[in-house]
Amino acid sequence: MTEKKKEHVIGVDLGGTKILAGVFDLEFNLLGKSKKSTKSRRGVEAVIERIARCVLDAIDECDLAPDGILGVGIGAPGATDPESGKVIFAPNLQWRDVPLKAALEKQLKLPVFIENDCNIQALGVHEKELKGRPKHLVGIFLGTGIGAGVVVDGALYSGFNRTAGEIGHMVLDVNGPKCGCGNRGCFEALASRTAMFNRILAAVKDGQKTLLTDMLGAGLKDMRSGDLRKAIKKGDKFVQQVVEEAAAFTGIAVANVINLLNPEVVVLGGGVMQALEDQMFDIVVRNARKYAMSGVDTGIQILASTLGDDAGITGGAVLARRNTPVK
Amino acid sequence: MTEKKKEHVIGVDLGGTKILAGVFDLEFNLLGKSKKSTKSRRGVEAVIERIARCVLDAIDECDLAPDGILGVGIGAPGATDPESGKVIFAPNLQWRDVPLKAALEKQLKLPVFIENDCNIQALGVHEKELKGRPKHLVGIFLGTGIGAGVVVDGALYSGFNRTAGEIGHMVLDVNGPKCGCGNRGCFEALASRTAMFNRILAAVKDGQKTLLTDMLGAGLKDMRSGDLRKAIKKGDKFVQQVVEEAAAFTGIAVANVINLLNPEVVVLGGGVMQALEDQMFDIVVRNARKYAMSGVDTGIQILASTLGDDAGITGGAVLARRNTPVK
Repeated sequence: MTEKKKEHVIGVDLGGTKILAGVFDLEFNLLGKSKKSTKSRRGVEAVIERIARCVLDAIDECDLAPDGILGVGIGAPGATDPESGKVIFAPNLQWRDVPLKAALEKQLKLPVFIENDCNIQALGVHEKELKGRPKHLVGIFLGTGIGAGVVVDGALYSGFNRTAGEIGHMVLDVNGPKCGCGNRGCFEALASRTAMFNRILAAVKDGQKTLLTDMLGAGLKDMRSGDLRKAIKKGDKFVQQVVEEAAAFTGIAVANVINLLNPEVVVLGGGVMQALEDQMFDIVVRNARKYAMSGVDTGIQILASTLGDDAGITGGAVLARRNTPVK
Repeated sequence: MTEKKKEHVIGVDLGGTKILAGVFDLEFNLLGKSKKSTKSRRGVEAVIERIARCVLDAIDECDLAPDGILGVGIGAPGATDPESGKVIFAPNLQWRDVPLKAALEKQLKLPVFIENDCNIQALGVHEKELKGRPKHLVGIFLGTGIGAGVVVDGALYSGFNRTAGEIGHMVLDVNGPKCGCGNRGCFEALASRTAMFNRILAAVKDGQKTLLTDMLGAGLKDMRSGDLRKAIKKGDKFVQQVVEEAAAFTGIAVANVINLLNPEVVVLGGGVMQALEDQMFDIVVRNARKYAMSGVDTGIQILASTLGDDAGITGGAVLARRNTPVK
């Protein structure tokens, strides 16, 4: 391994269940990546040590050395303070006031920058996929939960408590299903992976027939979004209905965003959208146009991100690049 | 009348039914105002002529002359393009591509600046009532319809098509009452003056007893928000329930805004809030706190504007002031 010029950046996507790290060149091309389970139950220090190992593995995977790396950008699932470098609150990790930047810099001997995970996904899509063009953009990411990142005037918008983008708890159906937050009819309780799985599990318990039980067994153990796609492709009308209803609510959420913020582009991403784009996207767009006020959505693009699971690490690389001068 | 130094600005609030013009000093103290009905059915030219007369009346009311005025700022009910000075689309006036700025400048021989009416109300509240302090603010204005103005980084945010703030068509209850826009359960169909009046009229038709019929006759002719307040104060539980339900939905809408945008301040204004603040505001705040995600609303202020009907003209004065150097 020869010593290299510092012409690479690292993006890290820290999630409740997995850590993903990617090495990028300065045009944000992904050169290699590494993945680890998060194991948040082992505590803060153990998770930080796993992040560091994941980063070093990704560097090694690309036949690089840490001294060829400009910096590391990391997205964390919760409220973050980029200035102090702290994760203020991350419910999925049970973290509060964790000095993630300082701890990782100590382990990696590299500059580290942190942001909220949905913000960083929006940043990745804005910079890499859309070449930084849209002035205002909202990225909506559908996975286990639902979150958004907001770009205003080309920069991340994070609000007063740095928690902007909590679109998962936007109420769409005040009498709808109960949400984990305690309220009813939140977007997340209607259209997240969890919401769809809960509907399917409850229906199966009530005697609903579905190909999913043939595929996964009666308990539907280890069900994934991709299983829903497979069942629909095999003609499962029940699963199709569940997914299409989630898509319809997603369209209403997109319309609410267009009516309120009138961004130039709304991008949909996240694991659910990646696995079920063919089944969901057209319905999302149709409903978004139906529920947006007449004239308000003219010229506004609604897109499905092509970055998929790599949106977070791409945004992390963008964050690192913006914060580090080339040496 | 002696000639004065140019140390006054005019704010105009152009509405579907009335035109309000106010003369302000450079600290945005209101010195005098004038009011005219809009008479939009008489056509664009007639309305513009009425705006000009309303402005001149306000100036005269204050014993001033037009040559003591720095400029005029006007809020129009629809999508506006401040740069071209055109009202792009104002459904209540049935206006499309009206060069309001140019036409008024010709009549008044004064610089004129235009903006959307809810934006300008938010600007008035931000600058005059809150002394320009909040970095990010959302003003929600409840009247015949419902709209919002968004301030980001101290400046008006208007979005891609200059229509940001159409919060009235944010869906809160997907199976709720039909809205004028064709969809169901929009905020405006649940909590505007029109929504409350429609609920009351329908219930009375179905035999509901209410003090309002004693006050206004069986047809409830010329019912106003203030009549609802009077009926509630006299103990009308039915009207109280209608108003409290509207307040509850307003609270959910405020929570949706706090979750998505995390502004430092949410201000509630408009004719409905002015007439029914005592009956609505506490319920709005309670529900906003209940539906905002835990931690997300910490430190965020929810206020009822004290400017009432003068928010629009105050914002107009601010707009004029920001665009004109003192001579």
